[in-house]
Amino acid sequence: MSQRKLRLGAFIMATGHHIAAWRHPGGQIDAGTNIDHYIALAQTAERGLFDQVFVADTPGLRFEGSDEAFSRQGRVSYFEPVTLWAALSAVTKHIGFVATASTTYEDPFLLARKFASLDHISKGRAAWNVVTTSAENVYGNFGQDKHPEPEVRYEKAQEFVDVVKGLWDSFEDDAFARDPASGVYFDPAKLHPLNHVGKHLKVAGPLNLERSPQGYPVIVQAGSSEPGKELAAATAEAIFTAWTSLAEAQAFYSDVKGRLAKYGRRPEQLLVLPGISPVVGRTQAEAEAKWAELQKLIHPSVGLNTLEPFWPGEDLSKWDLDAPPPYIPQPPLGRNSRAHVVLELARRDKLTVRQLYEYLAGARGHWVVVGTPEHIADQMQSWFENGAADGFNVMPPVLPESLDDFVDLVIPELQRRGLFRTAYEGTTLRENLGLERPANQFSVQARKAA
Amino acid sequence: MSQRKLRLGAFIMATGHHIAAWRHPGGQIDAGTNIDHYIALAQTAERGLFDQVFVADTPGLRFEGSDEAFSRQGRVSYFEPVTLWAALSAVTKHIGFVATASTTYEDPFLLARKFASLDHISKGRAAWNVVTTSAENVYGNFGQDKHPEPEVRYEKAQEFVDVVKGLWDSFEDDAFARDPASGVYFDPAKLHPLNHVGKHLKVAGPLNLERSPQGYPVIVQAGSSEPGKELAAATAEAIFTAWTSLAEAQAFYSDVKGRLAKYGRRPEQLLVLPGISPVVGRTQAEAEAKWAELQKLIHPSVGLNTLEPFWPGEDLSKWDLDAPPPYIPQPPLGRNSRAHVVLELARRDKLTVRQLYEYLAGARGHWVVVGTPEHIADQMQSWFENGAADGFNVMPPVLPESLDDFVDLVIPELQRRGLFRTAYEGTTLRENLGLERPANQFSVQARKAA
Ligand SMILES: Cc1cc2nc3c(=O)[nH]c(=O)nc-3n(C[C@H](O)[C@H](O)[C@H](O)COP(=O)(O)O)c2cc1C
Ligand SMILES: Cc1cc2nc3c(=O)[nH]c(=O)nc-3n(C[C@H](O)[C@H](O)[C@H](O)COP(=O)(O)O)c2cc1C
Repeated sequence: MSQRKLRLGAFIMATGHHIAAWRHPGGQIDAGTNIDHYIALAQTAERGLFDQVFVADTPGLRFEGSDEAFSRQGRVSYFEPVTLWAALSAVTKHIGFVATASTTYEDPFLLARKFASLDHISKGRAAWNVVTTSAENVYGNFGQDKHPEPEVRYEKAQEFVDVVKGLWDSFEDDAFARDPASGVYFDPAKLHPLNHVGKHLKVAGPLNLERSPQGYPVIVQAGSSEPGKELAAATAEAIFTAWTSLAEAQAFYSDVKGRLAKYGRRPEQLLVLPGISPVVGRTQAEAEAKWAELQKLIHPSVGLNTLEPFWPGEDLSKWDLDAPPPYIPQPPLGRNSRAHVVLELARRDKLTVRQLYEYLAGARGHWVVVGTPEHIADQMQSWFENGAADGFNVMPPVLPESLDDFVDLVIPELQRRGLFRTAYEGTTLRENLGLERPANQFSVQARKAA
Repeated sequence: MSQRKLRLGAFIMATGHHIAAWRHPGGQIDAGTNIDHYIALAQTAERGLFDQVFVADTPGLRFEGSDEAFSRQGRVSYFEPVTLWAALSAVTKHIGFVATASTTYEDPFLLARKFASLDHISKGRAAWNVVTTSAENVYGNFGQDKHPEPEVRYEKAQEFVDVVKGLWDSFEDDAFARDPASGVYFDPAKLHPLNHVGKHLKVAGPLNLERSPQGYPVIVQAGSSEPGKELAAATAEAIFTAWTSLAEAQAFYSDVKGRLAKYGRRPEQLLVLPGISPVVGRTQAEAEAKWAELQKLIHPSVGLNTLEPFWPGEDLSKWDLDAPPPYIPQPPLGRNSRAHVVLELARRDKLTVRQLYEYLAGARGHWVVVGTPEHIADQMQSWFENGAADGFNVMPPVLPESLDDFVDLVIPELQRRGLFRTAYEGTTLRENLGLERPANQFSVQARKAA
């Protein structure tokens, strides 16, 4: 039995990862703005000894499609991630909090400050999911005229992360004497303004906040293009990713792990966490019935909306849902691999329109495993032990129901196999994940080494 | 006995309002980054039935003066306000949370989002203290080349507040059907992008967050220049201010209340809340001894640093602390009224250097009342009943000690006099403050009226 333990995160997508989850009786209908719902979820995840909970984010709301399809979207109104996690940190003790924030649209000083605050407030349980924002149509909220090109976004992201780390290191760890007798509070020689002037950013610093319990929050990344993988290799400590087969996941795993050495990093300094959307039943049949019930809740206009990008200019509402699409276009150029997979499925397996959108909408391109706790544990173990994953980002299809199922049924099975902890090891997220506390780049040691 | 009740806020300046509070045995030495300290304070204030707690803020750290004086400052490392209040909202039930945020340096979309999130998360207990940032030297944290002039800052502040309110009104209050049977989640016709293009800001919207329990957070303002007062009259629902005599406070009170009519507002729609720094003793002598003990903790370099702006270019460290300043300069031009007061005190009362800095540093220009609970209640009652205040922003000199004193000794005295509540009236901050829930500017009624 391996000593290595699975790392588990719970991807808390408001009402659940399934696109129609909000209609399901096991869901919470106003999840996005219901703080009690989130408190219960975080406490359930902590009961299940998850390393962390995670929220995705887009700083805006712009929908492409008909009002009919728009009116049926459950994800239009939800909390800002750091504000949410700060609240939940006060009613939990162990679990970590991964908040998504955009290097394309947020301000580096304010971002550094809110994440450092969260790390202090949670006593060392904060993480930042660094994204360049996948939504191409929210730039107008920030006075910009277009979504920058991927290369520019990632170039800026790297500079942004460096600036934020520089701000987090403003005070050396031992800068604070706080001696009431002498009246000396701190040592100004251990305070380091950044004075950064770069291609994309100009930030003076220092941050008005001392180093946080973890040194700085855990850095997570979720892009999988070339520049995305380079950013992860250079700076991330965990990477979220989406694969539906062991072979693809293995290829990705060795790809990103292989990029670390050139940044002077070791493979274990970057945890690879693919997504898994588990549909748990006491029997295989029960699990499949659950999944079918969910898929049935996808309204055709919502389903067709997810197909529209692949048939540009076409009015899909006229199509027969139970026949294959009238024609299969060439996949669009560029590196949209999802389009390739979908159109290939349509071509090869002759899926009907409904089957196609159920595939796409049901798990938003992520890996769905439908079955008993043993079956799900088998799948996870296979990826974990065969070089495809250091752990998983668990995406419960319906919340709270599917998280309860996972914690009550799958976690014990993973524990029985010795794959997962039976108690938290440390007090900070880094300690639980087995990640080092980073040294301060301005400390005496660091300056001597340089 | 008046029916009108005092409104009380607790100004939570980390370790206390007194500049040397961190050295005091009744203080909390690492207050700025100690979440347990803040939790205890909010719970104490709630036990005392305060309407709200308040934190001031500056987005940066730049000190003018010697390293010697800098090393003795207790306020260099502290939490971002909204993150802090979100955490405290999860462990309290009634008290409101006023967070300071800058219209000069923050982003309007992100600001609207975090405050609306806080209002949801706290179930209607959020308020925004709108400031243009008084610190003139933090612009470099935001890639800017200088602190904008007051007129520009206030012009932008007004536009900023309008934009933020527009974002908060993105969804009409009844936009959400959330009907699982039909699968309709919300009505896109009740979603209103802002598409703002103004002199200072360009913000598309809509906000990806529905209207919050209070409609929007309570708007607070704290500037007292001409444009500051106009901003308050146009948009604020409470105004913080600093006066040390009844006459000045009365003049300010009628001044700002008199400005409301031209914006179509009634006097009771803006609460005037002067600051009071209460030093409570069971006897007058005990209170005075407490204050003297605190004043003694001001290190001369810290005290002199507060005087430096009035003697520009002078090396004050060479002065005899127990003699009057060698000369009294002309007060600087412009509307810095604090300089006038200080230099006039020096001239008229022939204060020594030490007395002068104790006056200035001890309460940062705010009203200090030293005495028994009865004496403090007398003073508050006098301002409250004589057209100088609708309530107070209570600035405990040392935290937690002085807040405990106020809650245990002064609150009961105010209650005995029928001046203060004995139980919370409502569930939201607006309900407790007696402020209306604002209508949505895009609602059908509003559109009909227009
Ligand atoms: C599990 C997971 C979560 C993600 N969360 C977000 C998110 O919250 N916000 C976002 O803009 N993008 C998110 N992404 C998308 C990535 O940031 C990225 O844009 C996308 O994977 C495309 O890769 P690329 O940007 O490297 O081309 C997520 C991706 C994955 C796999
Ligand atoms: C009680 C009180 C609290 C204040 N808090 C802040 C603050 O947190 N941040 C800030 O930049 N200014 C703060 N101010 C300063 C005002 O915003 C304002 O800049 C100052 O009163 C000068 O007025 P003017 O800006 O209208 O010239 C505060 C003022 C008072 C009276």
